[in-house]
Amino acid sequence: MMKQNYKIIVSYDGTRYRGWQKQTNTGDTIQGKLEALLSRMAGEEVAVQGAGRTDAGVHALGQTANFRMDTELSDRELMDAINGFLPDDIAVLSLKRASERFHSRLSAVGKAYCYRIYTGNARPVLSRRYVWNLGRELFTERMEQAAAYLTGLHDFKSFCGNPRMKKSTVRRIDSVKVWREPGEDEVRIRFEGNGFLQNMVRIMTGTLAQCGLFERDPEEIPRILEARDRSAAGPMAPACGLTLMEVKY
Amino acid sequence: MMKQNYKIIVSYDGTRYRGWQKQTNTGDTIQGKLEALLSRMAGEEVAVQGAGRTDAGVHALGQTANFRMDTELSDRELMDAINGFLPDDIAVLSLKRASERFHSRLSAVGKAYCYRIYTGNARPVLSRRYVWNLGRELFTERMEQAAAYLTGLHDFKSFCGNPRMKKSTVRRIDSVKVWREPGEDEVRIRFEGNGFLQNMVRIMTGTLAQCGLFERDPEEIPRILEARDRSAAGPMAPACGLTLMEVKY
Repeated sequence: MMKQNYKIIVSYDGTRYRGWQKQTNTGDTIQGKLEALLSRMAGEEVAVQGAGRTDAGVHALGQTANFRMDTELSDRELMDAINGFLPDDIAVLSLKRASERFHSRLSAVGKAYCYRIYTGNARPVLSRRYVWNLGRELFTERMEQAAAYLTGLHDFKSFCGNPRMKKSTVRRIDSVKVWREPGEDEVRIRFEGNGFLQNMVRIMTGTLAQCGLFERDPEEIPRILEARDRSAAGPMAPACGLTLMEVKY
Repeated sequence: MMKQNYKIIVSYDGTRYRGWQKQTNTGDTIQGKLEALLSRMAGEEVAVQGAGRTDAGVHALGQTANFRMDTELSDRELMDAINGFLPDDIAVLSLKRASERFHSRLSAVGKAYCYRIYTGNARPVLSRRYVWNLGRELFTERMEQAAAYLTGLHDFKSFCGNPRMKKSTVRRIDSVKVWREPGEDEVRIRFEGNGFLQNMVRIMTGTLAQCGLFERDPEEIPRILEARDRSAAGPMAPACGLTLMEVKY
C-alpha cells in the first residue's frame, strides 16, 4: 500500500539559509531541514518535494511542498509535531492529506512573488532582512510602463540566470503590480505567472529598478525580450528583498 | 562656549537589547551604545538624552534624543560617521543642529506608539520579532469600544507598571486606533498621547486584548481607571510587539 501523500504550506525567513534545495554536503537548506526532521520522525528516509527552488536568502510566506509518510497522528498533531522541532525561522502553516497524484511542482499552475525595495535615505532597521536597501527614489510610473511589456506570454531567456538552461524559457506572466507602500519609503512589486526561471524575478526587478532610476527606458523591454540574451537585461536584484507568496493549484 | 546641541531620530530593533536606558554595568542598551560611540568620536564623555525609555525588547522607528558635541563635521558627515559604527539593528535616521534649549524629553509634547498582534493560528515567521503571537482571533469592535474609554485626560495609575511611582500618573491620550491589517492575520493598535507611564502601552494593550477575546467587557474600563490600582487592569503584553513610532515637539 502506498504511503499517505501530504501537502504542506511552508513559511521561512531565508536569511540564514542557502536556499530551498538540499545541497550534497550541507544541512543549511529548508528542504534539507524538513527532510532530516521528517525522516527522524518516520524512522526512514522521507523525501520532501518543493514547488520551486528559492535562491539562498530568499524568503517564503507560501512555499508549497509534498511528502509521503505513514503515521497514526492526525493532520493537526503531525503539523504541531513538525513545528515543535523546527527553528523559529521556518514554520509549516498548513498540512493536509493530498491525493496520491498531487505533486507540489508538477501540479502547480501558478506562483506569486513579492519584491520589496527600500527607497529612503536612512537605514531600514526593522525591515532590513526583507528589503533591498536601494536608498534612492524610484519613479514607479516608469516601472509600471516597463512591467506592462513583461506581462503576457514571452520567451524570458534574457531574464534567466542559468546560462545552460536547456528547456523552454517561455513563460506566461499574468500580472506585475508596482506600488508605493502608504506612508513608507518602500516600493513593492508583485509578480504573478505560470512559472518563473532561475533568478527571473530578481533580474526582472533589477531591470524595472533601472527604469525607475532613469537608467533605462521602459520602451527597451521588448528589445531585451527579443535579444534572448542575459546580458541584454539589467542586474539581478539582491535575494533578501524577495518573498515567495503563494503557489497556485 | 557651549557645545553644539544635536537632535537625532533613532530607529532600532530592540530584540537584542535591554532597552533604551543605560544600565550601570552593561553595554547592551541603545543609550549605552550611542554614548560609547559618541564619546569615542569626541575624545571625551558625551551624554545622550532620550525622549523616553523603551523597555527591553521594544523597538523604535522614531525615538528622539539629543547630545552636545563639538565637531568639524557637517551634519550629514556626522550622521554617516555614527551610522558607520553602529550595528545593523540601530540607525540614526536624521541628525540636525538644535537650539541650546532643546531637550528631547522635556521639550516633547507627544508620542505615538504602535502595537502589533498576530491573530492567526500558524507561526508569523517573517514578523516574529515584531509581533505578539497571540494566535487567537480578536474582536476589534470590542477593542475599539474599550479604547474610546481610554481616550482623554485620565489618571492612568492602574496602567502604570511602576508601583513606586511618586509623580503624577495623569496623562492625556489623544487617540487609540485599532485596525486589522488588510490581508493579514494581524491587528494593530496605534496610541497617541502627551506622555506614557512605565509599561503603560503594554498594559493598555493587554487589557484591550482581553476585551477583544471576550475575557472582559469594554464597559469595565472606567472602573479600572477609577480603581487607581495596577491589579484592576489586565496583564502586560509582550515587549516585542511594541514600536515607538514618533516623538512630537
